[in-house]
Amino acid sequence: MHINYQQQTLGILGGGQLGRMLIQSGINYNLNIHILDPDANAPCKNLCNHFVQGDLKDYQTVYDFGKACDVVSIEIEHVNTRALYQLEKEGKNVFPQPHIIEMIQDKRKQKQFYLDHGIPTAPFLLTDDKEDVRQHVEFLPAVHKLGKEGYDGRGVQLIRETAELDKAFDAPGLLEKFVDFDKELAVIVARNEQGEVKTFPSVECAFHPEHNLVEFLFSPATISPETDNKAQDLAIEVIEKLGMVGLLAVEMFVTKSGEILVNEIAPRPHNSGHHTIEANFTSQFEQHLRAVMGMPLGHTGIRSAAAMVNLLGEAGFTGEVLVEGLDEAIQEKGVYLHLYGKKLTKPFRKMGHVTVLEEDMKKLREKAQRIKELIKIKA
Amino acid sequence: MHINYQQQTLGILGGGQLGRMLIQSGINYNLNIHILDPDANAPCKNLCNHFVQGDLKDYQTVYDFGKACDVVSIEIEHVNTRALYQLEKEGKNVFPQPHIIEMIQDKRKQKQFYLDHGIPTAPFLLTDDKEDVRQHVEFLPAVHKLGKEGYDGRGVQLIRETAELDKAFDAPGLLEKFVDFDKELAVIVARNEQGEVKTFPSVECAFHPEHNLVEFLFSPATISPETDNKAQDLAIEVIEKLGMVGLLAVEMFVTKSGEILVNEIAPRPHNSGHHTIEANFTSQFEQHLRAVMGMPLGHTGIRSAAAMVNLLGEAGFTGEVLVEGLDEAIQEKGVYLHLYGKKLTKPFRKMGHVTVLEEDMKKLREKAQRIKELIKIKA
Repeated sequence: MHINYQQQTLGILGGGQLGRMLIQSGINYNLNIHILDPDANAPCKNLCNHFVQGDLKDYQTVYDFGKACDVVSIEIEHVNTRALYQLEKEGKNVFPQPHIIEMIQDKRKQKQFYLDHGIPTAPFLLTDDKEDVRQHVEFLPAVHKLGKEGYDGRGVQLIRETAELDKAFDAPGLLEKFVDFDKELAVIVARNEQGEVKTFPSVECAFHPEHNLVEFLFSPATISPETDNKAQDLAIEVIEKLGMVGLLAVEMFVTKSGEILVNEIAPRPHNSGHHTIEANFTSQFEQHLRAVMGMPLGHTGIRSAAAMVNLLGEAGFTGEVLVEGLDEAIQEKGVYLHLYGKKLTKPFRKMGHVTVLEEDMKKLREKAQRIKELIKIKA
Repeated sequence: MHINYQQQTLGILGGGQLGRMLIQSGINYNLNIHILDPDANAPCKNLCNHFVQGDLKDYQTVYDFGKACDVVSIEIEHVNTRALYQLEKEGKNVFPQPHIIEMIQDKRKQKQFYLDHGIPTAPFLLTDDKEDVRQHVEFLPAVHKLGKEGYDGRGVQLIRETAELDKAFDAPGLLEKFVDFDKELAVIVARNEQGEVKTFPSVECAFHPEHNLVEFLFSPATISPETDNKAQDLAIEVIEKLGMVGLLAVEMFVTKSGEILVNEIAPRPHNSGHHTIEANFTSQFEQHLRAVMGMPLGHTGIRSAAAMVNLLGEAGFTGEVLVEGLDEAIQEKGVYLHLYGKKLTKPFRKMGHVTVLEEDMKKLREKAQRIKELIKIKA
């Protein structure tokens, strides 16, 4: 069978950096990509075959957009799923499937799914509002998470002790036992309609101490092969129990006792997979495209050890982007800059990332640190 | 100094596959790229910040296009250089410089340049027309080349013996002694305005027996380190004697006696450098952008041995593209498809290429051959 992928139109909900890197990858297959984004200057604006400015949460906008496509996918979860259900019903390929997106949109349902399906995760309680959280002092230290609308570190609040209870969100959420983890891992797994499943090797995430955003990522994770296998198996278990078609990032904790717990999942390319562009045989972006288009999945092996450094807008700078230290950084071997095409920077906004290749893990850590100190996004 | 490359507009004359891969690379730096191409459906059409449909040979069209840009470059040599001279005069950065493009447009002037600057090249005679060629029977076997307008194997004719004299072009050209070469190499070299120069390691080209187009390319070339160094030094000599800013592909013959002769040069990304996207630390496309934008040049080292297979339209098929064998091919580790986004195929049209990575050179050759037999561009 010779499917002509070039004749299929892929519609992507969201036109940010993830959509941009999907397009950059899709150029190789000459995919016909349509983008829907509320921002008229979205990073994908000038790079897609067709750009529609519109509200991702509006039924009619999403329905009309998807109607003109053969395959509909996402690069952000916060979209109108009613429209996606309708498109699915009308025979469109909607991947990930609407019921999965809907479940993932609500962290309460997500946690319940783990519980119902025997997927190891930190103990939690569902909470209705701030007052409800106050009733569970015995559960502290804990992390309070908003059920809906959290993104990029927003909607997550660590509550160590009673005095901090006021930080709780006054909306439906969940209170999760604080996990004193040894490492935070992520495994990206893909599954296509034919049921083929492939995982990328585990990576290790280092978070910014204050802003709950990935600051560094290292691939491979410095864990035993057993832990790596266990983490990859767990990611496969999650995507198979979901029956999902597409790409799924599974964030996990490795506890000090060696247990692996699923923290959160994202049904799309993810910050923890950006290094795959240069460091693995297939990138997560190509893998996402392959999965949703029904192509065979690509080889996920590691070509080189790598670190990924997020380029966040520097504190104290808001306005038109000025990249400091770029010339010095890109003179080094194996340093790859990715700017996301956002016109304006603001403190802690994700403006780009840098991938650093280096075989020796110690040198890799030093190089990543040096690059991070060198490149600054100012205004 | 912190140059804001994002605020510079780069105008590229030509919007074919080379422009397309330049854009794909330029996304990482968020470069603002304008494209001029006569074809309303050029491969770059939907991927650039601004697309202008227009004649590359028309003075006013090229001038107006360049006027709106900060830096003007090319992905094809056949452009109006008078307009480029004017833009240069008005202070625009035109790289490669107009006088170099003009010289390279005419293979007669190109050969004369080699002669004048002591660059080794095959002996040749300038010829005015077919009749003139007939006067030089003693020079056969030889290759007759049209002075102007040759491209992708057109405008080049092997004349082995008197009986084949009728194949000569009836226009100004040059008759070049047939070189019974051992290998055909290419070295890509870049130079920026600051005078920094970097070469990629030599690659080996295998041509299609009939169509004078590269069929396979292997990196690195299977030559001694001495020959590789000699070839890289020669490429540096050429770009420095030209004083050129940009990327230059230098095609060379290694004669059976071990001499290296310059065959032809192209002042832009070149078919012989496509493998660098996956196989080298910096791709030729990024290197071109770095050179013309005044950025520091990237590391050119090899990450993996590689082969490049051109995907030419199959003989006997004209019409809308159908790619055969794709699914089977892309299941293999280290096989990278690049389709150029051309709607219509015709016999021997360059429709795409595949890069194949494999450490062992013998396995690499087998894999390249297998992929070539597998993927067919039909209609």
